[in-house]
Amino acid sequence: MEATLCELAGRLNDWDRILVLSHRSPDGDTLGCASALCRALIGLGKQVHFACADPVTPRYAFLFEGLTFPDFEPEHVVTVDVAAPDLLGTLKETWYPRVEMCIDHHATNSMEAPLRYVDSHAAAACEIIYSLLCEMKAQITPEIADCLYAGVSSDTGCFKYQNVTPQTYRIAANLVELGAHGAEINRRFFDTKTRARVEMEKRVYDTLHDYFGGKCACVSITDQMKAEAGAGEDDADGLASLPRQIEGVLVGVTLVEKAGEGYKISLRAIPPVNAAEIAAVFGGGGHAGAAGCKINASLEQAEEQIVAAVGRWLEEHGL
Amino acid sequence: MEATLCELAGRLNDWDRILVLSHRSPDGDTLGCASALCRALIGLGKQVHFACADPVTPRYAFLFEGLTFPDFEPEHVVTVDVAAPDLLGTLKETWYPRVEMCIDHHATNSMEAPLRYVDSHAAAACEIIYSLLCEMKAQITPEIADCLYAGVSSDTGCFKYQNVTPQTYRIAANLVELGAHGAEINRRFFDTKTRARVEMEKRVYDTLHDYFGGKCACVSITDQMKAEAGAGEDDADGLASLPRQIEGVLVGVTLVEKAGEGYKISLRAIPPVNAAEIAAVFGGGGHAGAAGCKINASLEQAEEQIVAAVGRWLEEHGL
Repeated sequence: MEATLCELAGRLNDWDRILVLSHRSPDGDTLGCASALCRALIGLGKQVHFACADPVTPRYAFLFEGLTFPDFEPEHVVTVDVAAPDLLGTLKETWYPRVEMCIDHHATNSMEAPLRYVDSHAAAACEIIYSLLCEMKAQITPEIADCLYAGVSSDTGCFKYQNVTPQTYRIAANLVELGAHGAEINRRFFDTKTRARVEMEKRVYDTLHDYFGGKCACVSITDQMKAEAGAGEDDADGLASLPRQIEGVLVGVTLVEKAGEGYKISLRAIPPVNAAEIAAVFGGGGHAGAAGCKINASLEQAEEQIVAAVGRWLEEHGL
Repeated sequence: MEATLCELAGRLNDWDRILVLSHRSPDGDTLGCASALCRALIGLGKQVHFACADPVTPRYAFLFEGLTFPDFEPEHVVTVDVAAPDLLGTLKETWYPRVEMCIDHHATNSMEAPLRYVDSHAAAACEIIYSLLCEMKAQITPEIADCLYAGVSSDTGCFKYQNVTPQTYRIAANLVELGAHGAEINRRFFDTKTRARVEMEKRVYDTLHDYFGGKCACVSITDQMKAEAGAGEDDADGLASLPRQIEGVLVGVTLVEKAGEGYKISLRAIPPVNAAEIAAVFGGGGHAGAAGCKINASLEQAEEQIVAAVGRWLEEHGL
């Protein structure tokens, strides 16, 4: 049974002592949802807590600025942008049985909860939270508008992904009108590089190999490169999109060294190529546009194996 | 005397044999305006011609796809996104005296024309053309929507500049609803690099110098670098935004070699820094966020002079 937005709004307005959960390895959308919802509920005078299996990285820390969460025993548990129980990570065991409301935009959502609201037409789960707060007649402060805008911007790659709809732009318009710093948030997410990041990009480009007449481009990231560039995890974030950005590339492959476990492979594809199908060859998965897998081998062997799989996919599909 | 949008619409609906002019070194906004307006006027059965002092680069060629312009003696001349007579370049002498309608969004517009419409609140001149076509009740085909979206996206740096307003997003929503391929256009403009561009970025990063504790970053682009990277003008386009992208940088400076004329300087600034005021020291100009000037000197001397001017501005403003 799916709930309506009106039902969710009614419950949240009635409830108190609410725990909001984000998915593990949290991104801008799940954190934008959680921070916006927590702020709005606090604004309504409720006790609220937030939890996530992994820490909030510095990139997203601003979403939670000024928020403090008191200790209390939650009465109601809400998940935002969490597509499957496993994505609760280490929080699954304690909290999944008690999830009462699940708000998400993944078509594949497999969460069970008394109140489920999954709108796969929403480019970002933050679009749903925006509509929910309107339905609740909660005040959308400039801080809340920033959190929601951050989610919309993150999950659409700054309006570059196919998931963007006219509604996405209309919500962005309303959020900016409510005080969201849209331009700053987009610059922060998509147009700001640390010096370590610049050093990483130079090194990553030096590893660039072309295959199949330029339809596939492959780069690698080793621990040594990170050390030389003085790069942390945040600085390496998003580097997987570099090879796919090159003109004519249909599949971008990034091999990232995982100490003692070979290489983590990120695949980024442009339609009609399906990255998830290529990743599945090595037991991985994901979406058509972005997928991943692991290959426990040397860099040369891992690159050879994944490139061979890309080649087979391209050949089988006449590309 | 400023005209109203209604007046412009009435004239354009009445006129025939119209010449539309873009500014020299044409960008996505002036070309988006021109291609959209030409397509709409042709759709209304009129004879239309387009001219620009400089060629349309491959980056923007898709805006004019399928458009053909017959030869005829123009009866009416319209400029789009042209802020000053000199920006007509080599077309100034012949056509400036005959400009009848000037449509622009630069607050500094100095064009004289019987019908002037300058809306400096519009992030892109394409926002004005969108409203104008609505006022004209012209059909906005998917091709026209693409042209207008391209202008909006270009002139806002994919919704990253301060000039974006709620109206910008609402127009983007309407354009996407009318068939604009927003995500593809944003990817094409902001997420696609030629291999020569990648080679240029590597070389440009190698020239990176920091000043004033990282508040100013400076890079240079020489003809030799372009030759080594196999880069054309398109491949060097937008490189001026690289130094400003680095975390903590308030002023990004890019020096581009101009054979026999020293260096063209591009300044990109983050509020509260005003790039136009710094460029004015060397007789240049522009906006607060993006400005330019020329310094006829060696690379070392030009860098020293512009950096000194940046330093003075920062000091005078206590930054």
